[in-house]
Amino acid sequence: MQIIAGKWKSVILYHLIHQDATRFSTLNKAIPSVSPRMLALQLAQLEADDVITKSAASIDGRATEYALTPFGATLAPVIDAMAVWGTAYNARLQKTTVS
Amino acid sequence: MQIIAGKWKSVILYHLIHQDATRFSTLNKAIPSVSPRMLALQLAQLEADDVITKSAASIDGRATEYALTPFGATLAPVIDAMAVWGTAYNARLQKTTVS
Repeated sequence: MQIIAGKWKSVILYHLIHQDATRFSTLNKAIPSVSPRMLALQLAQLEADDVITKSAASIDGRATEYALTPFGATLAPVIDAMAVWGTAYNARLQKTTVS
Repeated sequence: MQIIAGKWKSVILYHLIHQDATRFSTLNKAIPSVSPRMLALQLAQLEADDVITKSAASIDGRATEYALTPFGATLAPVIDAMAVWGTAYNARLQKTTVS
């Protein structure tokens, strides 16, 4: 699963799958701990791997919109299983730090 | 998901989840492209992260048996989703190389 290796790609794909952040600016807001430079690098790699597409989102071409390709959409079950696991893992961590 | 990062951990966990290879020797046979040294390193990391346990599997203690911890078992949905995706991805690759 090298195609989603690393810290950020699965998080980026989660937002694109759930369409709650699909522009560079909204992705950067949704993932505050990633630098704009790293976000741009991860998006470029995902695009090169045919997982996402990039298109102009405004007439002046300044805003960029990202979307999953049909191939990228096949990753949704993996990304969602990771999200479910991550939520349970974080809850487990909090319980052990509180007790 | 740094806990299963890298090329081999998800493959190792797949075999432990499906219990078709649970000893060092059978894991190494089931994953021929991993070196014994790398396999030992990955197993040690998984053990340190409380994902698997190691126990003597023979009276002379020479054979070692690995098993998932309850925490490790929570990864099963992610590992299985990866396996389903990987199988479809490889089939897609073969189709594009054949056509």
